[in-house]
Amino acid sequence: MRIALDAMGGDHAPAPIVAGAVQAVAADPDLEVVLVGDQAKIEPLLSNEGASARLDIFHCTQAIGMDETPVVGLRKKPDNSISRSWQLLAEHKVDAVVGAGNTGAMVAGGLRLRCFLKNVKRPGIAAVMPTLRGPCVLIDVGANVAPKPEHLYQYGTMGSIFARRILGREKPTIGLMNIGSEEAKGHELAKKTHNLFEASPLKEQFIGNVEGRDIHKGVCDVIVTDGFVGNVILKVSEGVFDFLMKMTAKEVLGALQAEKGLAEKAMQNLVSRYDYSAYGGAPLLGIDGICIICHGSSGDRAIKNALAVASKYVRAGLNETIVQELETTPAPTASA
Amino acid sequence: MRIALDAMGGDHAPAPIVAGAVQAVAADPDLEVVLVGDQAKIEPLLSNEGASARLDIFHCTQAIGMDETPVVGLRKKPDNSISRSWQLLAEHKVDAVVGAGNTGAMVAGGLRLRCFLKNVKRPGIAAVMPTLRGPCVLIDVGANVAPKPEHLYQYGTMGSIFARRILGREKPTIGLMNIGSEEAKGHELAKKTHNLFEASPLKEQFIGNVEGRDIHKGVCDVIVTDGFVGNVILKVSEGVFDFLMKMTAKEVLGALQAEKGLAEKAMQNLVSRYDYSAYGGAPLLGIDGICIICHGSSGDRAIKNALAVASKYVRAGLNETIVQELETTPAPTASA
Repeated sequence: MRIALDAMGGDHAPAPIVAGAVQAVAADPDLEVVLVGDQAKIEPLLSNEGASARLDIFHCTQAIGMDETPVVGLRKKPDNSISRSWQLLAEHKVDAVVGAGNTGAMVAGGLRLRCFLKNVKRPGIAAVMPTLRGPCVLIDVGANVAPKPEHLYQYGTMGSIFARRILGREKPTIGLMNIGSEEAKGHELAKKTHNLFEASPLKEQFIGNVEGRDIHKGVCDVIVTDGFVGNVILKVSEGVFDFLMKMTAKEVLGALQAEKGLAEKAMQNLVSRYDYSAYGGAPLLGIDGICIICHGSSGDRAIKNALAVASKYVRAGLNETIVQELETTPAPTASA
Repeated sequence: MRIALDAMGGDHAPAPIVAGAVQAVAADPDLEVVLVGDQAKIEPLLSNEGASARLDIFHCTQAIGMDETPVVGLRKKPDNSISRSWQLLAEHKVDAVVGAGNTGAMVAGGLRLRCFLKNVKRPGIAAVMPTLRGPCVLIDVGANVAPKPEHLYQYGTMGSIFARRILGREKPTIGLMNIGSEEAKGHELAKKTHNLFEASPLKEQFIGNVEGRDIHKGVCDVIVTDGFVGNVILKVSEGVFDFLMKMTAKEVLGALQAEKGLAEKAMQNLVSRYDYSAYGGAPLLGIDGICIICHGSSGDRAIKNALAVASKYVRAGLNETIVQELETTPAPTASA
């Protein structure tokens, strides 16, 4: 198992990225990580953190900034760490790429090299969301902000395979994010996608429209939406989580005395379990290989988790199933 | 002050609606409420709850269901309580309409009667959201799912007036909901709207793009978005709130013994302060008159609050300012 890790991507790169890689190879004897980035910056960190025969450096001279316009950055900086990571994947020198850098550049870098799986029209980022009934998959959370109904249909197929293979759901249910439960609700994209699912081989798994308040109730295993709405959902969830944990700490802990320590510990448990920034990153599904996109604020723990998650997905053989099911259960041709 | 209240709208109508009206007129001696709906159903409730000279009934025979397709419902049921309420407003027989029924039908009912304010292209629903720095305004949360950049620009103007007059912000800041802070982020609508604000008289108030996680931090006073995304944000916030309060009750309260009661009370305070369903409803801005749209699950307390909020908005004279500012600070004509 060999994974390319963008050492230059992330709010605090490269230090926590390199530290995460060191921890990951220490924890998994079958894992090799290629740190892609500026050798002069990575090497000193490795000497501090502890080098390993399973940690390589792939030197490149450029990096794309977190706020840089993806397409411009990729074009102006041909030797950037994101493109180099994708290149290693395209040449089958690694099984997966992991990065906490500019999300748009990560996705666009893969698109430029046409690292698509066979039968996939557009890759989508799948995020695992906590719910009252266990985790569910939200897809897409930012790869494709102006999708067609057929793209959303494929997200249903890919999300469903992910829910089966990774979350262990036997026959995952699929919902379409909308602003009401009735069939005729929402904008054109939602209506057309609804009709597409209804007329498709996924009909039995499709539970129809779901609303924002349904996600965390766990009403279905897969929620399909466009990358704009999905990204907003992910970040709003994160924001409300932060807000409420701060308010709870202030008001509930503030009301206690003798048992304040106990309550504090229980809250810390809760926070570390649902902290969105500590998650191991979100897979870009539909790629020939595995690509994990991490939160920009990822620390060493998140990077270590992301590398472990990437290995797990490679071993799960998701992609063979995706290629096969997109072939056997394609979207109906008349889409509305 | 005379307000039309859709007595037939809401998940549990008409009982909690009528009860809310009774409480509202008891609390405000200047308030008169016209209960619009089926007299045979409303009258017995009034006898139970306590009639008042300031509570009238406007009888009509039909009601639009919560799950009914708005346009179809309005056309097939001409004597429905939503259309009758709007008619009272259009004829200036009331100052405001309040309803907890089918949101789409409430909005479409107003559009059909062309109850627009002068200079307004499309009305938008404004929701007040809690943040770490006090409340902010999110507009639109469901009136207009496929807006043009000029509509979003007007939402900026109307939201800003709302923040000034109702939330007491001197010079409200305006943010555009997007999936990244850089100018070039997002879909076409977001990019065009960004450019429109940048070239407009609102430029000084405009802070650029904001992300989902910024809302509850309170980074600006007004957040502009389309009705699809806004509706999803509102409902996701509600869903995460429910989820986290349930998890906190289970895990934090579950860890306590002697001080469990204290913690429980603090949590109940927190819940009642931020409970989205207890809010007094959201105004549909851009209407000639005041229209308050309530949560479908509204109980008597929420309806009472909504009637009080409607009176407050009528007295604040929001509409004169909206007409005037849309005239003096129009959107630039070249929109991209």
